[in-house]
Amino acid sequence: MTKIELYDTTLRDGAQGEGVNFSLEDKIAIARRLDDMGFDFVEGGFPGSNPKDAEFFQRLAKEPLKHSKACAFGMTRRKGVKPADDPGLQSLVASEAPVITIVGKTSDFHVAEVLRVSEQENLDMIAETIAYFVSIGREVIYDCEHFFDGWKSNPAYAAKTIQAAADAGAMRIVMCDTNGGSLPEEIAQLTKEAAAAVAVPLGIHTHNDSELAIANTLAAVDAGAIQVQGTINGLGERCGNADLISAAANLALKKTGYQVLDPERIARLAELSGYVYEIGNLLRRNNQPFVGPSAFAHKGGMHVAAVNRVAHSYEHIPPESVGNERRVLVSELSGRSNIIATTTKMGLAEDKDLMARVLEEVVNRENRGYQYEAAEASFALLVRRLAGTFTPHFDLEKYHVTSENRGGAHAHEGPLTEATVKLLVAGEVEHRVAEGDGPINALDGALRKALKDHYPNLAKMSLVDYKVRVINSEAATAASVRVVIESRDADGQTWGTVGVDENVIQASWEALCDSIEYKLCKDEA
Amino acid sequence: MTKIELYDTTLRDGAQGEGVNFSLEDKIAIARRLDDMGFDFVEGGFPGSNPKDAEFFQRLAKEPLKHSKACAFGMTRRKGVKPADDPGLQSLVASEAPVITIVGKTSDFHVAEVLRVSEQENLDMIAETIAYFVSIGREVIYDCEHFFDGWKSNPAYAAKTIQAAADAGAMRIVMCDTNGGSLPEEIAQLTKEAAAAVAVPLGIHTHNDSELAIANTLAAVDAGAIQVQGTINGLGERCGNADLISAAANLALKKTGYQVLDPERIARLAELSGYVYEIGNLLRRNNQPFVGPSAFAHKGGMHVAAVNRVAHSYEHIPPESVGNERRVLVSELSGRSNIIATTTKMGLAEDKDLMARVLEEVVNRENRGYQYEAAEASFALLVRRLAGTFTPHFDLEKYHVTSENRGGAHAHEGPLTEATVKLLVAGEVEHRVAEGDGPINALDGALRKALKDHYPNLAKMSLVDYKVRVINSEAATAASVRVVIESRDADGQTWGTVGVDENVIQASWEALCDSIEYKLCKDEA
Repeated sequence: MTKIELYDTTLRDGAQGEGVNFSLEDKIAIARRLDDMGFDFVEGGFPGSNPKDAEFFQRLAKEPLKHSKACAFGMTRRKGVKPADDPGLQSLVASEAPVITIVGKTSDFHVAEVLRVSEQENLDMIAETIAYFVSIGREVIYDCEHFFDGWKSNPAYAAKTIQAAADAGAMRIVMCDTNGGSLPEEIAQLTKEAAAAVAVPLGIHTHNDSELAIANTLAAVDAGAIQVQGTINGLGERCGNADLISAAANLALKKTGYQVLDPERIARLAELSGYVYEIGNLLRRNNQPFVGPSAFAHKGGMHVAAVNRVAHSYEHIPPESVGNERRVLVSELSGRSNIIATTTKMGLAEDKDLMARVLEEVVNRENRGYQYEAAEASFALLVRRLAGTFTPHFDLEKYHVTSENRGGAHAHEGPLTEATVKLLVAGEVEHRVAEGDGPINALDGALRKALKDHYPNLAKMSLVDYKVRVINSEAATAASVRVVIESRDADGQTWGTVGVDENVIQASWEALCDSIEYKLCKDEA
Repeated sequence: MTKIELYDTTLRDGAQGEGVNFSLEDKIAIARRLDDMGFDFVEGGFPGSNPKDAEFFQRLAKEPLKHSKACAFGMTRRKGVKPADDPGLQSLVASEAPVITIVGKTSDFHVAEVLRVSEQENLDMIAETIAYFVSIGREVIYDCEHFFDGWKSNPAYAAKTIQAAADAGAMRIVMCDTNGGSLPEEIAQLTKEAAAAVAVPLGIHTHNDSELAIANTLAAVDAGAIQVQGTINGLGERCGNADLISAAANLALKKTGYQVLDPERIARLAELSGYVYEIGNLLRRNNQPFVGPSAFAHKGGMHVAAVNRVAHSYEHIPPESVGNERRVLVSELSGRSNIIATTTKMGLAEDKDLMARVLEEVVNRENRGYQYEAAEASFALLVRRLAGTFTPHFDLEKYHVTSENRGGAHAHEGPLTEATVKLLVAGEVEHRVAEGDGPINALDGALRKALKDHYPNLAKMSLVDYKVRVINSEAATAASVRVVIESRDADGQTWGTVGVDENVIQASWEALCDSIEYKLCKDEA
């Protein structure tokens, strides 16, 4: 078995995708999830290009990843500058990332036309940059931009660039099909040639412009590459990068002789895929291979019994091997295994009848747009409600929100917003009013005012993230929305809650109330 | 040059995709478009399975396709029944389709476990069905279900099934990777073995379950298959069929030695892709290879600078060769060069002073959370405002939104929401009120009421997508939100607008107003 390393660049190359925009907290959350999933390398960003990425690495320096090696991305030094004097390289030093990934030019054409330096200067830029980071104790991965185009046009020069990287101490040399235009047979051939030219282990980095990113990745691995770079869900510029979900699933389940993630983690790929879509507030691709909701959906009058009898006739792999499910039985996202895992954690798995009711309710709610992947607190409350062990800490009598924009010269200042909340709390009526920056903020303010005398601990809890997602977007402004709120306690613990409604105010109210109820239940436990 | 036939099954296998539902008129329209595009075969449906497909062939019988051969799909005869007595086969006869495509079993396992007939009976079913249609003057294409799995498990029996089809007079034998689980190296090897077993030309029919449909198609062609089956945009059950757009583009533009559609028609692939999405009312996949709106979109600042200098560095083919176009995204990661490229396209690059003001304003707005990459209409309005060439079509006097949840038993029904809008339009005061499913829907309704008498064309425009994104999510419910709205005109043209505010109502109002202003400016131009 050959160990194949997975190198995730969702947070850097994936963030180049159209419509992809991760906040700092999003990036931290995804990095920790990838760490937990056992990815070998997690590329967190390009600290020289923006303060958000620089801050990301500061956060990781304080609390490092447990398993994955964090990688900071940057370019070779500028022409005619010493590494120690290059601000881009110094931002990589400042990142404290244990692995530095350096991209450099392979193609003589790009050296002359894009970089506009001599061929020798490019070789020096590669060698000196890598040697510099090695000298200060970092591991260096060298990404060869336009590797295949470069090798095809001038193999001798391309070989010199990777030789320079190898001699300077790069731990991996990664062949990038930068514009996504190569064919599998070319990838296979040139990977063999590269392997013959240098002793450093090779990696492969492909893009999907020809709809061949996965085939190209597999072709390179078959030809000797031992590292696969890609992104979760194939996010990335233009047509995206190789989807690490499909790459890992193919290597683990379809090809033989390769070791990637262990089977328990391969079985969590669907969950990982959904998590990244949710965190990034991105539209899921329903027919995504392996993990899409349609990937094991059977249509067209096929008997469920027939599918059950010879399941492998209609399914190239058992859906549960990647954490997916046959659509006819259970909803796609939460899935039976997640529900069992969660209720087991809550000590409720023995109660088969409760389990069945939880499963049914989750399916019902998912059909209405709920998702519990990022809302484990709402899920816990749902289970308690169904188990009959939940007593609400307050009841709603009424809320009322008004928002008025007085127009004219003030039209662009935004509206004045006020919310009133009337609750029944421990037998007392609490009727409070608050202004806010928007309807949800005003509601949150009034709700907290109504509860603070009864539950002073709520002051320790803060809302750290608020996300809104349109579900059936074709209904435009009449569409249902899903609101996901993330809250944090004074001790740093965070939890997510969810609400769904056609009205963003009501959906937010639901998620706000769940967040507060979860905190109050937690404090009692 | 080897001629490779394109066999489109969008209207049959594609229609099995989740959410795909073509009306009779849709099917006719797509068939005629495929005919016009020069596809060799157009599979129109399964007339034995439903009246719509039967009617489709009656319509084509009255007015046949000009270039493409229409194919009707069906199964081998039932066991123990003569072809002339089989109702399914007789519906194929009645279709009057010049080509009959028959699917049959290749795998001994499926013969025994699914079909539940003897191995000899299966061979007879294949042979007699094909011979029957040949005897009445039809051409027959034989689709081998589970070809690769069947051949792997029992090559001798699989070979007998295709020999039976060949002897009975099939014009093509099509190897189907029915569950989408095969790898390119397996496809290549078994295609060679099949070619050695029969003299009839081979076809390939793949599914994308392993994200290898295109690679598998190309592998089969390289190994000798001369017909490619697939669907436009890869529509189809589970993860979809091979996308004929990608297959044709790769064969025509990337591989050598194959002749498919002529270059003028390859240059209309983007148009064809969009047409099928529109007719089917399906969500476009933005990062679709070759033809997606993101396929030649450049976001990273470094790349954009280089693209303008040497376009082919970051584009594997010229976008216009498939009828697509280069797009430069205005985004936080990009910087100056992207904005210059966009304003150049608008014909404003000469005005250096305006350019500087646009750049400054975009930077300011991006710092406040605006993003223009999916909001090109808001960007165009921004440029016009700065250029002094924009005159608003209405002015806001006031809007007022209220939302009330009366609690108690009704707490979970959600609030009642009402919006009033008071505008100054062409010197008249318009003051209207609407209820809605939520605050934005109510505002949209009142705004349209206030404008409809002045601008009746607005009735032709609809909102097709509404997205909300929290920007500085660490401020939780006081965070700014970015709203992006996508609108569509009666002619199918779409445009995006953006609004940012701490109040989701105000942000939505801004995006709504930009959308309407853009439509009104567009109609005047």
